[in-house]
Parts: sequence; C-alpha cells; structure tokens
Amino acid sequence: MSFSTLDIYKKNTKKSAKIFERSKKFHINGVSHNIRFFEPYPFVTKSAKGKYLIDVDNNKYTDYWMGHWSLILGHAAPEIADKVKKQIRHCWMHGTVNENTVEFSEVIQKAVSAAEKIRYVSTGTEATMYATRIARAKTGKKIIAKIEGGWHGYTTDLLKSVNYPFDQSESAGLTGEDHIISIPYNNLEKSISILESVKNNLASVIIEPLLGGAGCIPATKEYLTGIQEFIHSNNSLFILDEIVTGFRFRFGCLYKTMNLDPDIVTLGKIVGGGFPIGVICGKEEVMKITDTNSNKKIDRSYIGGGTFSANPMTMTSGKAMLEILKKESVHIYKKIGRLGEETRKGLSKILQDKAIVTGMGSLFMPHFLANGITQITNAEEASKCNTEILKKYHFELIAKEKIFFLPGKLGAISHVHSEIDIKNLLEASKRFAVSLK
Amino acid sequence: MSFSTLDIYKKNTKKSAKIFERSKKFHINGVSHNIRFFEPYPFVTKSAKGKYLIDVDNNKYTDYWMGHWSLILGHAAPEIADKVKKQIRHCWMHGTVNENTVEFSEVIQKAVSAAEKIRYVSTGTEATMYATRIARAKTGKKIIAKIEGGWHGYTTDLLKSVNYPFDQSESAGLTGEDHIISIPYNNLEKSISILESVKNNLASVIIEPLLGGAGCIPATKEYLTGIQEFIHSNNSLFILDEIVTGFRFRFGCLYKTMNLDPDIVTLGKIVGGGFPIGVICGKEEVMKITDTNSNKKIDRSYIGGGTFSANPMTMTSGKAMLEILKKESVHIYKKIGRLGEETRKGLSKILQDKAIVTGMGSLFMPHFLANGITQITNAEEASKCNTEILKKYHFELIAKEKIFFLPGKLGAISHVHSEIDIKNLLEASKRFAVSLK
Repeated sequence: MSFSTLDIYKKNTKKSAKIFERSKKFHINGVSHNIRFFEPYPFVTKSAKGKYLIDVDNNKYTDYWMGHWSLILGHAAPEIADKVKKQIRHCWMHGTVNENTVEFSEVIQKAVSAAEKIRYVSTGTEATMYATRIARAKTGKKIIAKIEGGWHGYTTDLLKSVNYPFDQSESAGLTGEDHIISIPYNNLEKSISILESVKNNLASVIIEPLLGGAGCIPATKEYLTGIQEFIHSNNSLFILDEIVTGFRFRFGCLYKTMNLDPDIVTLGKIVGGGFPIGVICGKEEVMKITDTNSNKKIDRSYIGGGTFSANPMTMTSGKAMLEILKKESVHIYKKIGRLGEETRKGLSKILQDKAIVTGMGSLFMPHFLANGITQITNAEEASKCNTEILKKYHFELIAKEKIFFLPGKLGAISHVHSEIDIKNLLEASKRFAVSLK
Repeated sequence: MSFSTLDIYKKNTKKSAKIFERSKKFHINGVSHNIRFFEPYPFVTKSAKGKYLIDVDNNKYTDYWMGHWSLILGHAAPEIADKVKKQIRHCWMHGTVNENTVEFSEVIQKAVSAAEKIRYVSTGTEATMYATRIARAKTGKKIIAKIEGGWHGYTTDLLKSVNYPFDQSESAGLTGEDHIISIPYNNLEKSISILESVKNNLASVIIEPLLGGAGCIPATKEYLTGIQEFIHSNNSLFILDEIVTGFRFRFGCLYKTMNLDPDIVTLGKIVGGGFPIGVICGKEEVMKITDTNSNKKIDRSYIGGGTFSANPMTMTSGKAMLEILKKESVHIYKKIGRLGEETRKGLSKILQDKAIVTGMGSLFMPHFLANGITQITNAEEASKCNTEILKKYHFELIAKEKIFFLPGKLGAISHVHSEIDIKNLLEASKRFAVSLK
C-alpha cells in the first residue's frame, strides 16, 4: 500500500487504533476470527445499518462483506429487527422445543428438496461436522472427499487442503487427516480417477456448488452431475455445502438449478437472518441413522445440537428472513443479480487484462493475474493469482473510498445496495486501476 | 409413569401434542437436541420470563432447567433484555471487530487467571474442539485423556466414553477415537496409572471440575490437584472445562477455589447471558501457538472462530450478564448457594435411603439407588442408579406440579428462584416420595 493510503487510514481511524491495541492484549491476533484482521489494524465497528458499517471514529463504510455474506437484506433489516425485538420479551433462550422452529422448518422443507429431515445447530462448522459423521455412519465407510480449497468451517473432520499449497497440513494438532482426501474442482476426469482409487472406503464427497472462501468460483453443472453420478453408483453420499449459496441466488438452494439430488445439504449464514445457525438437511433414508429410537448407540450416528440449537432468537430471525425473501423473491434476486452482473462486467472492463472477475448472481471477486494464470476455474488457479494486489485494492477502497470488503475476500451485494453504490464502486475501482499502470 | 400422571399431562398439553406431531415430520426425534425429547412428548414453549417457562397451552412451569443451566438470572432478565434490545438497533451481526468484545474480555481476564488470551466461538463444542487441537499442537503429542462420563459437546475430538457403558463407541462414523482415552473420576491412583501408561504421547487431560451431564458430581480438590501435578510434570496440558461451572458458584471459575493452575479453560453457557457462546481462555505461553504472525501453517494450531464468533448480540448480552453478576456477586451467589443447600438437604431427608442427592452451590441432582450403589463419586456409580425413577420423578413434577426439570438432568437454581419455590419443590417431592413406598 502506498504511504498516503496508509496515512489516510491511520488518520481516520485513531480511536480504532487505540481500541485494537487493547484488543491485542486480550485476543490472539487481536480478533476472534483470523480473517478479520488486516494490516495495519482493522477498524472497530460501532454500529451498522442498511448498507453501512460505522466505525468508532464515525467513518461510514458501504459494506460488501455483509457479515460474512450472511446479511442479504443488509444490516439491521427493520422487518427482522421488529420480530427479534418482540422475541426478546419472550426470552432469547428456552432450551426446549419451540413452535417457531416448526414453522421455520416448514418453510425450509418446501424450498429445499433434500430437507426431508432437518436438524438445527449453531454454526456451519457444526453442520458440516455432523454431515460427515452421518455419511460415515450410514455407509460404514471412512473416507470423505472434499474439494481442493473447499472450506467447510473449522471442524477437525474437514480441515485439510483448504489453503494452497494443498498438500501441506492445515494445522498442527489434527487427527483423522488420513480419512480426508481432496479432488480438483471442475476437473471431472481427474476427480473421478481419485475417487475410483478409494471407492471401497468412500463415505461421501462434500462440495460447495460455488467455492466461497477459495475464490467465488462456480462449479459447472457437468462437474457436479458427473460427481453425483459416480457417488450414487458407488453407494456413497453426495453432500452439498450450501452455507454460502443457499438462498443467495434464489429462494432455495443453488443445486436445484442444476437438477441435482444431494443426500445431505448444509445451510447457514443467510437462513439465520444474521443470528448463529447451522442446518443439516437430509433425505429421510439417510437421516434416520441418527434416530435415537431406532438405533443402538454404536449403530447410529450421534447427532446433537448443543445448548443453543434452535434457540428462539435464531428461529425468529431466520423465519422472518425467509418470509421476506419468499414474498419478494422475484424482485430481490432479480435486482441483486442484476447489480452483480453490472459489477462483474464493470470491473472486468476496468481491470481489463489485469484481472479476471469471478462470481455469479450477487457475488463477485476480482483475481489479479499472475504466474501465467489465464482462467479461474478452481482454487489452485485462484491461489496463484496476486492476492497482495487484491488486498491492496480492497484496502484502498476502505481508506480512500469508505467502501468495505474484507481484504482478499469476495463481495456480496445485498438488497439495500443500489445502482448508485455500484456506480461508486466502479468509479473507485477506476481510480485504483489507474495506479496499477 | 402412572396412568393418571400421563393422563393429566396429555390433558394439559393438547396444543403441544399437535405441534410436536408436526415437529416430528420435520425433525429427527422431533427435536434439535436429542436430550430435549421426553416421553410421551415434550411440551412446546411459547414464552419464558423470570423463573417461568410458559407452554403453548398456557401451562406455567417453574423452571430448573433454565436453558441448559445457562440462565443464572432467570429468563429474559430485564437488565440484559434492555441492552440487547438496544444492540439490535446497531445490528446483531457485524462480522468485524467490535468494541464491546474488548470490554467483555477485560472483565473475563480479571476474573479468570488462565484467560491471558481469549478467543470467542459460538458454542461449547467449538471451544473444546479448539482446546484439544491447541493441546496437541503445543505438545506435539496426540492423546487426550478425558473423564469417564465427561461431556464436552459433540466434537469428534472428544466423543468417547460419554455414556455408560463407557467402553462402547458413542456413535458410528467417528474417526480419531484411538487418540482419546478415559480415566475414572475422583480415583487418583487408577487415573494416574492409566496416564502413566500413555505419558509419552499424552497431550492433555480435559476435566469438568463438576461432572455436569454425567450426574452433578464435584471433583475432589485432591483428585484435581493430583492430576494437575502429574500432567505438569509430564509437560502435558491441563484443560478445565468450566462451561457449566464458570460463574456458577462465584464470580469466576470453580478452579480458583482449589488453587489450581490450568493451562486452558473453556467457558460457555452463563457467560453468554443466554446467547450462543463458547470461550477458549488460555495462558499466553500456550495460546501463542495459534498466532498467525509467528508460526508457519504446519507449526501452529489452526484456530478459527466462525461467522458468528464475537457477534455483537452475544458480546452485549455476555457483558451485561457479567456486570450484573459482578455488582451483586456476594448477594447472588450466597442466595442461590443457600437455596441449593436447602434443596439438597431437603431432598435428602425426603428421599432418605432411596436416593443420594449430589451437587454443590446452586446445582443439585437426586440419584435413586440401585445395583448396590451406596455413594456417587463418578459417572459409573451415577449410571448404575435407577434413572427411570429419576425421570418418573421429574415427569410427575412436570405433569402434576408444573415444575420443570429436563427429565433425568440436574437442576439449577437461578437468582429469580425464592424460598417459596424451594418449599414448593420439596413439598411436591414429598408427594412423589409417598408414591415410592
């Protein structure tokens, strides 16, 4: 970053600097999620409303990070706020069965074909952990295949080949890595050949239909269909992780647009309306392995929930979110999809041969080309691009333009963004592009 | 259960019956946490306030389950409600660094000596998962020893020897069980001999200082001190899981009363004020293994957080909870401790030689003696008691007395309970005891 950009940022974020110094005293890396740190220090948020994040120095950022992409209606959406405020009167924690859970599930089941049975947990990490456990229990096999670069949360069961280089361990202190293998995204031939080599012990494949953390890269229909075909012919389970993509492009899951038939689908983020959630949706035939009435302890898959599962705040917020999305689905998805399209086209034009802009619908991400990369179809290609320029671009937007992307991460357009925001983003990007020349 | 009790319950919970029938269509076992189911069907909660849970048929239960024992100030505590309502205006989800996180951590650090560094996650399960990963990374060893019957959430890393018989696998579909061993609670000699046998590969021991789910059984100071001594002389890590016990008996952790010096402490439940939380607290020397600045990927412990970690609702709620507890700590803990003492003494007298009542402070649980059991010092002894009578007792309280315990689980007194509630509970228990004769 240029001295002047850094200077501007520091000048504008003096209170943040002080608070973050204190934060470092208490927290590893100063944060409670490694990715929330960026150089020289992240600003400290005071409030958020609509499209804006407001920091403690009163800087007002147009936000495209949108709470890890979970806030498709923007911050503090009034319709959700009203309902969760009312719920507070009836308490935010019951620890029992609640009616709104049933109503919420009714909506999800109608929208997601795989959701014949549903279990709520509190995070996406918990959802994917249970999904893999169910797959192993149901098939009696051990190996889970995931995508190189695929990100399914921090569960020990899937912590492999997340960050490039994919053949390195992700962390010290892991166990069970030998039961995880990885396959290259959008490369059907190579993927099938890897799956073939372990087919007798293959419990499942878990795939994000659009690689989120690894670069905002859609899977081809051909790829997903081919994988599903192999998996089902092998009596293994097909798990789609739609934590990022569920209710992002349409009212329901992305897989529906490709006529796929997953056995298990995990949801999170958007469906919680911004409150902590993870959802395991599965076919009845699969999920019955978790039924405590019909299975002995060692024959069934232990599936929990946790103290906060299906808590009344999350259920209220999620239900409110889905009701709004359902009611206005044509309007909302058309609008944010159009703004996404404009953004991708606009950025492609501005960045020309310097970057490829990936994404679909309301999601987008520029990849600054390097190392001979000419296309972005998987995580390896994305990782070989120049992520430092991307971070620099995002930091310039933050410091000079008051536009917030989590540096290095994809952008998510929400219903509260408008044409003028996209115009501003593109204008700002032009100013950055000039500096690249 | 007697026909009449069942009859009364069914008569009083007709709406619940209907809603739960629908719930079974959507959810495995009709619930989102296996333990929330009880026969013939759990009532469905509509609202909760103070000491009461109110179901959809307008039954009003005096609640001792208290949201999985997390609500030490009762349901919808007004001081917390006010603050979380205000926070809603500033949005419930930022996905960035917030000032209230820093303020919250300041309070925790002062109260918990092991909290030199803190990381927030969204559930206890996530907290214990990271704790074991950190221990393995820091020591370069693999084996985690846990207590027979010890419950640390659903993480694959600790899912062993939870339910009696402890030598059976807890679930199909697990991996990594060979890296977990278990030791008998409060039996120092046998525990040390087991730890000795694996000492070269022993990463840590994780212990609840009061066994929660396994029977409300306090550890002796001698036992914990002995384990800690062995662990530290072996260069392994001592993890205390205080998710149930933290801020339950005093303003801070239980271990402080025994002069222990754990390397890692996990918190949850109470410290979140009823909003989803898990906390990993650790010594600086240990936690620095997670620092992304000072370690290469394969040398450090991958520690995350997740989309919802340190979200502004949880931070606001947790901070409000701890502020109240701090301000009124002498009063609150003295009062609920005294009510707990009265309850244990009262129940012991009423149940006489039929049951032993375990617990401490505001926690209590009767164990109906069977199979020659004459003392309750560990999970095996608790498991050999007659849990069917306990469930029958709890169900009678629910159906006939409108007093709610999650059937089979320990009871937690909250600050909203009073002498009269304890008197009512004891009177109700007397009526049940008569039926036992």
